[in-house]
This record gives sequence, C-alpha cells and structure tokens, in this order.
Amino acid sequence: MESLKQRILKEGRVIEGNILKVDSFINHQIDPLLAFEIGKEFYNRFNNVRVDKVLTVETSGITFALCAGYHFNVPVVFAKKYKGLNMSEKVYQSKIHSYTKQTDYIISVSKEYLSPGENILIIDDFLANGQAVLGLIDIAGQANANVAGVGIVIEKGFQDGGKILRSLGIRVESLAVIESFNNNKIIFREA
Amino acid sequence: MESLKQRILKEGRVIEGNILKVDSFINHQIDPLLAFEIGKEFYNRFNNVRVDKVLTVETSGITFALCAGYHFNVPVVFAKKYKGLNMSEKVYQSKIHSYTKQTDYIISVSKEYLSPGENILIIDDFLANGQAVLGLIDIAGQANANVAGVGIVIEKGFQDGGKILRSLGIRVESLAVIESFNNNKIIFREA
Repeated sequence: MESLKQRILKEGRVIEGNILKVDSFINHQIDPLLAFEIGKEFYNRFNNVRVDKVLTVETSGITFALCAGYHFNVPVVFAKKYKGLNMSEKVYQSKIHSYTKQTDYIISVSKEYLSPGENILIIDDFLANGQAVLGLIDIAGQANANVAGVGIVIEKGFQDGGKILRSLGIRVESLAVIESFNNNKIIFREA
Repeated sequence: MESLKQRILKEGRVIEGNILKVDSFINHQIDPLLAFEIGKEFYNRFNNVRVDKVLTVETSGITFALCAGYHFNVPVVFAKKYKGLNMSEKVYQSKIHSYTKQTDYIISVSKEYLSPGENILIIDDFLANGQAVLGLIDIAGQANANVAGVGIVIEKGFQDGGKILRSLGIRVESLAVIESFNNNKIIFREA
C-alpha cells in the first residue's frame, strides 16, 4: 500500500533493537483518514472471502480492526490482555510470549462473541514473531471458528511471524513488509 | 442520541455494583457502524468550536475518539496507562484513582503529540466519577493546550463526574445519560 509506505518512510524511525517507531500515526497518535484507508485496503484484499467478524487484540490493533470491520459491515471483537490466567468458563484464553518484554501474558475473548463456523478475519498493526496472531488463531480454533485470513499493517519480514503463519496455510496480507533496516534506513520488500 | 439509547436498552445489562455491561457493542465487541454514527454525532455537537486534536485514553475510548477524529479530520491521540510513574521528561503524566478497582494508575502522553494553544476535544466511552477525564484535562493543561470540550458516549448521571466537569466550566456532551438503574431497569435522563 503505497500511501502507507510513504508515510512510514516519512515519519517512521528505527530505534535500538530493530524497533520501528511509528507512534506519530499508528500507535500513540493516529491519523484517522489513513486508518480508514487501511481498513478499506483490507476490505479490498479480503472481500473475495466470507468474513463474519473481525478479531484483534488490544490496544493498537483496535484502530485497524475497527476500520476493516466498518468496510465489511461486521462486528469487531478485541481480545483483552491479562497478566495471569483468569479461571472462568466464560472466556477463551491463550498464552502469548512477548519476546520484546521477555514475559508471558494471557489474551481472552468472551465466549459470547465468537461462534462455531464463523469466518474470522484477524487484524493487527504489527507482525514480528507472530505470537499474538497465533494466540488469536488459537482462540478462534477453541470457538470452532474458521480463520478467513490475517491482515497486518506492518510486517517485519526479517522476523519469523509471516513465515510461520504462511507455512500453516494461512493467508496473510501485509500492507507494508519491511525487508530490513539497513543502517537505520527502512527497506521494503518488493510486492 | 436515540439509536444509541435504543441499543443500550436492547443489549445493556445491569450487573452488581451499578455496572452497566455494554460489551456486546461498546467495549469488547464493537459495532463499527454505530461507532461511526457516534463519531458523527460528536462532530455535529462540537463542530461550532475549533478542534485541532482528539484525545482519549486506552482502551475503549480509542474506538470513539478515532471515529470523532475521522469526522473532524484531525489527529487522534490516546494516553497510555501504566502502573507506576515513568521517569521521563518526554511525556506528560497524570495520576488517576480508579474507584472501581480501588487502585491508582498513571496515564501518559508523549510531549510530541500535544502542543501549546491546540484545541483538544476529549472523548471517552464512559463518564462515572470523572477521574479519567480529569487526568486528560490535567495533561492538556500541562501542554498549555485548551480543552474545547468533552464528549462522552455513556454518562452515569447518578455519579459525580458530569457535575464536577460542568462546575469547572467545561462543556460536556454525553450521548446517553443514565439517570438511574431502577431494579436493574435503565432509566435515561430526559434531554
């Protein structure tokens, strides 16, 4: 998605630890018009499959899940993050390992909001090692829902997440794939 | 806002502790079309004042701040929540007391994303005792920005938040004001 890539080049900054800071328009300050355009692009890429619901995980994913859900005209569900397991029969839960923070956390979705046979489009802002998306796929599976695909705003192509998901046969559409940070210069993978 | 009130009556449930559960369309599952309509309603109510930026706090506020920001065509900033003070000169911080959880937390906004003289519209999903909104007002004040107004999706009219904010001379527009829960029946305040 060209407008997104241009914005990343203009405002993104590479900081220590191969972290891309895009908090001027993605995950602290948000550009709502760009967010809508991103939601529209997810719609354009996935409107050839049935999508009954959009699923993401708090916090930054909500923006793009909402905008995608708007274009599909389907409900959006965001998984909540917890520190520890919540002993409840009312929720689906999955444990996620954060490599960045070297800690585990739990994501959870109320059983009321995922149903067997539903086709779920998973949306997130970043894809790096894929742990968060794998947790959402796990939760969709617990609900006997189908994963229609995974839409990602920015994929770090030099980390394993994209490869892992695609090797599971899951369709992943990333609107910008970063091939490398070459001396802090952002290099995109050619489409 | 009539469509919102009807939806609250249809899907809202009053649970122990005077808590209104609206997680089927507001804060766990989201109805994106309603969220957009809500954003448009905030625009209709505040488009007679200058709004340079929309400010909210994670998590549930993001949905409605984004939709309001879309209609105003201005950036949206969400404050982040922390457990403890973060000793950084790069952020504005404010301490908030949560009466529900009987604990304090810190909200923080990068100094990059609020500027002196900007007119800030504060948006949140719920207004109860007003502590979160007061924290956002505090942060706007630290940035020497002006508070153009406060837009709330659901105000609990029987708690003090609305009164406190209005007594400070702040314009508060709440799209649904709950007067009381009478035997778990939701009674709205007349407009």
